[in-house]
Amino acid sequence: MKKVLVALNIEPRHRDKLMAAGAGCEFMFTAMGEATGEQVQWADIIIGNVPAEYIKSSEHLELLQLFSAGTDPYIVPGVLSEKTVLANATGAYGKAVSEHAFALTLMLQKKLHLYRDDQRLSQWKDEGPVTSVSDSTVVVVGLGDIGLHYARLAHNMGAHVIGVKRRAGDCPAGVDELYLSEEMDKALAKADIIASFLPGTGGTYHTYNAERFAVMKPGAIFINCGRGSAVDSEALFDALECGKIGAAGIDVAEIEPLPPESRLWQLQNLVITPHISGNFHLPDILERVVDIACTNLRTNLGGGEYINIVDMKTGYKK
Amino acid sequence: MKKVLVALNIEPRHRDKLMAAGAGCEFMFTAMGEATGEQVQWADIIIGNVPAEYIKSSEHLELLQLFSAGTDPYIVPGVLSEKTVLANATGAYGKAVSEHAFALTLMLQKKLHLYRDDQRLSQWKDEGPVTSVSDSTVVVVGLGDIGLHYARLAHNMGAHVIGVKRRAGDCPAGVDELYLSEEMDKALAKADIIASFLPGTGGTYHTYNAERFAVMKPGAIFINCGRGSAVDSEALFDALECGKIGAAGIDVAEIEPLPPESRLWQLQNLVITPHISGNFHLPDILERVVDIACTNLRTNLGGGEYINIVDMKTGYKK
Repeated sequence: MKKVLVALNIEPRHRDKLMAAGAGCEFMFTAMGEATGEQVQWADIIIGNVPAEYIKSSEHLELLQLFSAGTDPYIVPGVLSEKTVLANATGAYGKAVSEHAFALTLMLQKKLHLYRDDQRLSQWKDEGPVTSVSDSTVVVVGLGDIGLHYARLAHNMGAHVIGVKRRAGDCPAGVDELYLSEEMDKALAKADIIASFLPGTGGTYHTYNAERFAVMKPGAIFINCGRGSAVDSEALFDALECGKIGAAGIDVAEIEPLPPESRLWQLQNLVITPHISGNFHLPDILERVVDIACTNLRTNLGGGEYINIVDMKTGYKK
Repeated sequence: MKKVLVALNIEPRHRDKLMAAGAGCEFMFTAMGEATGEQVQWADIIIGNVPAEYIKSSEHLELLQLFSAGTDPYIVPGVLSEKTVLANATGAYGKAVSEHAFALTLMLQKKLHLYRDDQRLSQWKDEGPVTSVSDSTVVVVGLGDIGLHYARLAHNMGAHVIGVKRRAGDCPAGVDELYLSEEMDKALAKADIIASFLPGTGGTYHTYNAERFAVMKPGAIFINCGRGSAVDSEALFDALECGKIGAAGIDVAEIEPLPPESRLWQLQNLVITPHISGNFHLPDILERVVDIACTNLRTNLGGGEYINIVDMKTGYKK
């Protein structure tokens, strides 16, 4: 009898779904972040992001189904045995994260962050010209599920959308032009809005450094709802402080939580949210995570194709 | 030779356009808000919102072309002679005001106002569940140019849109269901989001009073980008303070500027912007205002049909 550890905050109906998919297994349920090392070592199948250091290359762990799209701690050599299948939750976050990023975009374009600051001072004050998504060239970097969702939101509102991705391919719906990662600078130079959804892999580290911010259009708006490590915080601070880029919105930081002493907090033209865009805050996310987990649970027990298997080299869904 | 007073902040190309449309007329240009009583009395045609008290029923004023959609001060008896044609700028603001209202909507749904407040305190703090336009029923009250634009934005993002209007008619694009003003309460009771674009006419005064807020769904989001007089400020304060409605975003107030001592400023679940959504802050607006003015100037001189004529009884475009 296989042993399944579920480390997720779920409701009874999700539990029922999972137990139906894993009929015949022994289940253990714990809250998110509360799995113990013993429980992790006990399990043949884990659903949830348990601490990587508890896994210790467990030889009988067959499937680790993450609830996140990001896989950073689990692709480090020595964490998972070669026998373990790692699957992520790509597809569960597209709607939630892209909508958050899009809300940040509109907020910055319409200067609502400045009006909020004025409001706190009881100030009825005109903050001047605004811009419109419909007149903007929007560059989306990272065209996974989240980036594609965001591209469609911007496209539907009338933007010209340029997508930047690693591999050549057809231009997906909502994307007007496609550039390869090597051509990123050419795309960035055209952007009124840059929205980045790059994951936190070695290859994306400090993608946005001083040189990158330098090629951007003066006054451009920069959004990062991928991973904080893709952005050099000091370069972002400088680009915002000198007004090279107009404004930025970030849901992620290089160090999280962002330390209280960080100079980023007090930049007026930066909006910071605390990595919550994909935090199970839309009910939709949990539904999709559970559905992915059920599919992979059934595959493990009865055969068929796993979905969302992670390429251990890139950290992306294969 | 007809005398044309233009009281607008325009660029040379707009001036050229207007002078071409009014070929043969004598033109006088002043900045917005700087027309004198003498200039107003001099003019046969005025393009711009000059002070109503300067007009004094001028008998030779043939056309007053406003740059606003709102007509409040000019439909008061005694301001315009019966010979004067009053035209507004309905159609110029649809994009700018609807996008501002939509940005406010997403900001409130994603709690970005709370995250901005947290940021000011250098706080990395999770503010909990959010909602999505795509899962929302959105009630749009006032289906003029602005309301219809907003309806399409919400509809394109996946919302179920209910429009509320004065007169029965076909269901316009972007609107899924249509209710008449008399049935407004029935519509409001279904709304996750209420977006109001009512003008400031006698008939709309305090449309949103305590009784109206009482019929709304607990936790609903309320947006007002029409006129402040449509909302009873005290009732709005109470509904927000007790949490009957979840959050509100207003670009207009009953008294403008909103006095520093108003209790509204400090409500955490209210976002206030200072009546700027249609303030020539998108370049698009001025282009459209000038185009409307050129059309009506040509009509005045050469015949044809005026556009955007205001019904002096309702204050709306006829």
